[in-house]
Amino acid sequence: MLESPMLAPMLGLVGLAASIFTFLMLQRRPAGNARMQEISSMIQVGAMAFLRREYTILALFIALVAVLIATLLNPQTALCFVSGAACSILAGYIGMTAATRANARTTEAARAEGVGAALMVAFGGGSVMGLAVAGLGLLGVGIFANVFSTPLESTYISGFAMGASSIALFARVGGGIYTKAADVGSDLVGKVEAGIPEDDPRNPGVIADNVGDNVGDVAGMGADIFESYVGSIIATIAIGATLKPEALALLGNGTGLIGTLMALPLVLAGIGLVASLLGILSIQVLKGMGPAAALRYSAWLAAALFLGGALFAIRSMDVSNGVFWAVLVGAVGGAAIGFITEYYTSMKPIWGIAEASKTGAATNIIQGLAVGFQSCALPVLTICLAIFVSHQVAGLYGIGIAAVGMLATVGITMSVDAYGPIADNAGGISEMAGLGPEVRAITDTLDSLGNTTAAMGKGFAIGSAALTALAMFSAYTQAIDQVRMREGLGNIIIQINDPGVVIGLLIGGILPFFIAAQTMTAVGRAAGKMVDEIRRQFREIKGLLAGEPGVKPDPATCVDIATRAALKEMVLPGLVAVAAPVVVGTLLGPAALGGMLAGATVTGVLLALFMANSGGAWDNAKKLIEKGEMPGEKKGSDAHKAAVVGDTVGDPFKDTSGPSMNILIKLMSIVALVIAPLVALL
Amino acid sequence: MLESPMLAPMLGLVGLAASIFTFLMLQRRPAGNARMQEISSMIQVGAMAFLRREYTILALFIALVAVLIATLLNPQTALCFVSGAACSILAGYIGMTAATRANARTTEAARAEGVGAALMVAFGGGSVMGLAVAGLGLLGVGIFANVFSTPLESTYISGFAMGASSIALFARVGGGIYTKAADVGSDLVGKVEAGIPEDDPRNPGVIADNVGDNVGDVAGMGADIFESYVGSIIATIAIGATLKPEALALLGNGTGLIGTLMALPLVLAGIGLVASLLGILSIQVLKGMGPAAALRYSAWLAAALFLGGALFAIRSMDVSNGVFWAVLVGAVGGAAIGFITEYYTSMKPIWGIAEASKTGAATNIIQGLAVGFQSCALPVLTICLAIFVSHQVAGLYGIGIAAVGMLATVGITMSVDAYGPIADNAGGISEMAGLGPEVRAITDTLDSLGNTTAAMGKGFAIGSAALTALAMFSAYTQAIDQVRMREGLGNIIIQINDPGVVIGLLIGGILPFFIAAQTMTAVGRAAGKMVDEIRRQFREIKGLLAGEPGVKPDPATCVDIATRAALKEMVLPGLVAVAAPVVVGTLLGPAALGGMLAGATVTGVLLALFMANSGGAWDNAKKLIEKGEMPGEKKGSDAHKAAVVGDTVGDPFKDTSGPSMNILIKLMSIVALVIAPLVALL
Repeated sequence: MLESPMLAPMLGLVGLAASIFTFLMLQRRPAGNARMQEISSMIQVGAMAFLRREYTILALFIALVAVLIATLLNPQTALCFVSGAACSILAGYIGMTAATRANARTTEAARAEGVGAALMVAFGGGSVMGLAVAGLGLLGVGIFANVFSTPLESTYISGFAMGASSIALFARVGGGIYTKAADVGSDLVGKVEAGIPEDDPRNPGVIADNVGDNVGDVAGMGADIFESYVGSIIATIAIGATLKPEALALLGNGTGLIGTLMALPLVLAGIGLVASLLGILSIQVLKGMGPAAALRYSAWLAAALFLGGALFAIRSMDVSNGVFWAVLVGAVGGAAIGFITEYYTSMKPIWGIAEASKTGAATNIIQGLAVGFQSCALPVLTICLAIFVSHQVAGLYGIGIAAVGMLATVGITMSVDAYGPIADNAGGISEMAGLGPEVRAITDTLDSLGNTTAAMGKGFAIGSAALTALAMFSAYTQAIDQVRMREGLGNIIIQINDPGVVIGLLIGGILPFFIAAQTMTAVGRAAGKMVDEIRRQFREIKGLLAGEPGVKPDPATCVDIATRAALKEMVLPGLVAVAAPVVVGTLLGPAALGGMLAGATVTGVLLALFMANSGGAWDNAKKLIEKGEMPGEKKGSDAHKAAVVGDTVGDPFKDTSGPSMNILIKLMSIVALVIAPLVALL
Repeated sequence: MLESPMLAPMLGLVGLAASIFTFLMLQRRPAGNARMQEISSMIQVGAMAFLRREYTILALFIALVAVLIATLLNPQTALCFVSGAACSILAGYIGMTAATRANARTTEAARAEGVGAALMVAFGGGSVMGLAVAGLGLLGVGIFANVFSTPLESTYISGFAMGASSIALFARVGGGIYTKAADVGSDLVGKVEAGIPEDDPRNPGVIADNVGDNVGDVAGMGADIFESYVGSIIATIAIGATLKPEALALLGNGTGLIGTLMALPLVLAGIGLVASLLGILSIQVLKGMGPAAALRYSAWLAAALFLGGALFAIRSMDVSNGVFWAVLVGAVGGAAIGFITEYYTSMKPIWGIAEASKTGAATNIIQGLAVGFQSCALPVLTICLAIFVSHQVAGLYGIGIAAVGMLATVGITMSVDAYGPIADNAGGISEMAGLGPEVRAITDTLDSLGNTTAAMGKGFAIGSAALTALAMFSAYTQAIDQVRMREGLGNIIIQINDPGVVIGLLIGGILPFFIAAQTMTAVGRAAGKMVDEIRRQFREIKGLLAGEPGVKPDPATCVDIATRAALKEMVLPGLVAVAAPVVVGTLLGPAALGGMLAGATVTGVLLALFMANSGGAWDNAKKLIEKGEMPGEKKGSDAHKAAVVGDTVGDPFKDTSGPSMNILIKLMSIVALVIAPLVALL
């Protein structure tokens, strides 16, 4: 039964159906009073406008690349490429539609029913995204795995991951620039210059800020995780399809082993989807334990169910037990990286940053940077351990399987991730609609929980991106070998002491630094445009700042400006990431390209961790002071002002540049895998 | 004549003699009035106290490691190791003695004779260091190359580079922590809290600050460059000694070619030393063109003479012309990296940072970080180009020769580097001795030129460290192959897609981030102790802050505190750097160790460039505002305050953590080369 080729797409459909069912249930919840609905609708309109414009640009890009792929490689890969892009877009669209409808409904649930109901609505909104990501991923990859089922044909499927990656890069970079430009711009003029509170309805940038939370943390994060999910599955299929006899012997025996190994990642992903569904349902029972415990235990339940199912599947498919250990090490590794991230961004290290804020902004920055640098070691060592163990027990195939094990329960981890921005938006709506402190207290509880889950989610996204990139890298070298074998050549040797490889390593190492520089300055430029517009409205719309009744800001223009700026700024980094592997592979050959992937992965993972964790730590250090937990300090004190500087620097770190790294390394690896047949003999 | 084995040590002796002669000439210059002599003597005493204590700790470390090397490897390598450490210590000692005597003499020359004479004295002081580094390096390596002249014996010589590296790491890390702790500590209490000017004689931390300039920028920089210099020569000898027949065919023909190739790096270094001496002498003639032009043209003259001599030597030694192109590409590459560094730290990018300061500290930091990220690309591409060309024309040997070509004129480049802190000290002495604005104007001119040369020198140090590390890396793989060949095994394959190598790459990638975190927080801790002590003196020494006549601070205690703190903090990063290759090589084998070196080199070079250049750019952006070059801004304005935050963050970036990276990557590579025989068969 498990090896039935239709199982994966069927389960994918189930996931998608569950996503749509959850969405319909959500729609039936009350959306609050007229003011709340109006605000929510403005956020919806803004978010959808951004997505539509973004997807229009991307459609052009996708069409162009598809033609190139069809011409230079083959139409099958081009078909997969377009489908991967379409599935990613669709998942993003579904998730955003749900998230921007769940926000006001969460606020209303908090107002009318209390914290338990509000949690359910926000998490329900998130799980629409989680289930859409898992369902569409499994459906898409499952269909193509059926259509292109022989080892040779299976190379076409990598086009699907490349399509997903391309969307992800632009979504992450564009979304990251949008969200921070809107955030920084509206804070700078509203909070700092005009002295009005955050989320104040007079501020025309507030809607754009709330749109940004959805654009960055729902659509951007979703595309990132979607890509890791399908990427890990596809890389493992590719590794399975090209395993050499001596490697096969380690993994089982009997005829048809290759077919089994190619099916297994899909089977595992299917089990993970079912486990995620059960985990999501369990929250109905667990919600009595309080929001934090409910979210945590439901994810743990899903993980336990998944591991049990995986063990059963691996045994019944006659695959060696070692493969199960690889699954286990991946799942545990992902959780471990999440916890390490939580430590650095919300425990002891943030007290050091808060303490350093007492001596000014410079020491706050130095301490935050040091925490970021320090936080790289343990997650990377965890990845090293996962590689070591999974390779010991199941060879290169084990590395791919470990990545699948880390990502199989994406249905629930992504639901938890998408819950965060919904809770954040719900808080903003309660403030703008003037619902009073009791409601705000509930949404604040949910929001602060969302910050924790977001930090863990970021760590998880980086860890899974690293493992996925490494799995793709293995698939790349095997793909090169296969072409070379057909030509009667020996395996490719990507020797680290070959000067071409060293050059590749160094060029690869530069790219994350280059993208970091580009994205950080892009936020500054885009925020500058927002500042100008908000200032203009305060100046030109009479009575707006004074709060005269009936005078309203023009948030649509702000949304438009942030959209244009973000889309303009995403082009250069996006093109560099896509073009770099093609250029290096063509000019310097497949070995140098391998070096480039390795160099980019090493510095990309490190920069991603450094930026995400220092950004998260600065944010929470500031909140420590704001909550009065630092003796003698409070909001507005000198130490708080210093902490705000750190938080502002951390914003593009954690929400724009850092997350871009994940996609950069995956996209370059998948581009290399797709063009492997073209560069193999250079 | 050129191939005479005694030529190199003889020329080394000439360089050393020239250094001592210059020092004696310097000693005869007038040292100014009693107050100037008193200040200079306090700086001298403090600097020498630091060196003595540092070297005492290092002597223990060196003795311990020497015993280990003698036991596990052989006594010959241990002898070379101790000699390398001793030569580095001696060069540092000579250079510091000269620099701390040249400072007051420069001030006095500025007072009595004007800018030309002051330049000559400061540059003379620097050239004592430059000639000592080049002379002792050539002497030491030259002697051992004579003693251990066969290819097999020549492996012992790498111990010399390891000794130099060990001293360099501790000198750079310890010196870097000292200089910034003293700088930040005395500024924080003096300028910010007490509101007295920089270099005010009432501030007990000012002497420690001036000691720090010498400890960090003279002794630390000198040990760094000494290490690159001997490291590049020794790596090239090692590559030459282990060249395989097909590689040899590329480089020339005839019997004795291996001997010639082993001799060539020493010959080139000898020619570079003579060219440097002539360049140093030429400044007597060039000084009429003004300080900046004189320094620049003297360095260019030396480079031109060196290249002419190199071409002659290569032709007359019957080595292929390709080797000359490798020399040329190295020399040009080093200069190019210097200019790129100058661009990012003093041209257009700093205007962007100054502009961003207008919107506050956060935007200043973001812009500075972005400049730092961006500044990595061109220097690394230059290194890639140097690797590519030198390998095309002369194989792996070419990479080593390119590094030698970059470093051969170290006699003059190091002189220019050491000139900077002397000019800086001279300014401090004129302020403390109250010599008035005319003298200060001259020393300011020389100081600001010193800042430019320091930035270029840092870029050059990073570039040469990268190329030296890569040359050592090549030597490492060849050394492993040689052991394997003796056992009848094939060449080592450090395949980038081997999981062990990937783990090595990732672990290597972490290390620079870890060292960066350690050194940055170390500066904070050490500066905190300085702050406490300076506050205590202001509080307890009656009449000190009021400036009552006869009341003096107690600078010796400050010097002592900074010394203790720096030495304590240097231990952990130092041990990690030495131990990491041993641990990884022993546990995971020689291929994983190769991966680790590559990973550490990639992230180390990038972090070094990022930190040095953003630090330099913040510094100069602040100076732009202070000099009134930003319309509407001046010292004390809000933009200036924001720029000061960036400058303070940049201090440990550019003077502590960034420079530590150079040594880290070289030290790990040389440790790997030395332990190659132990791990080759694991």
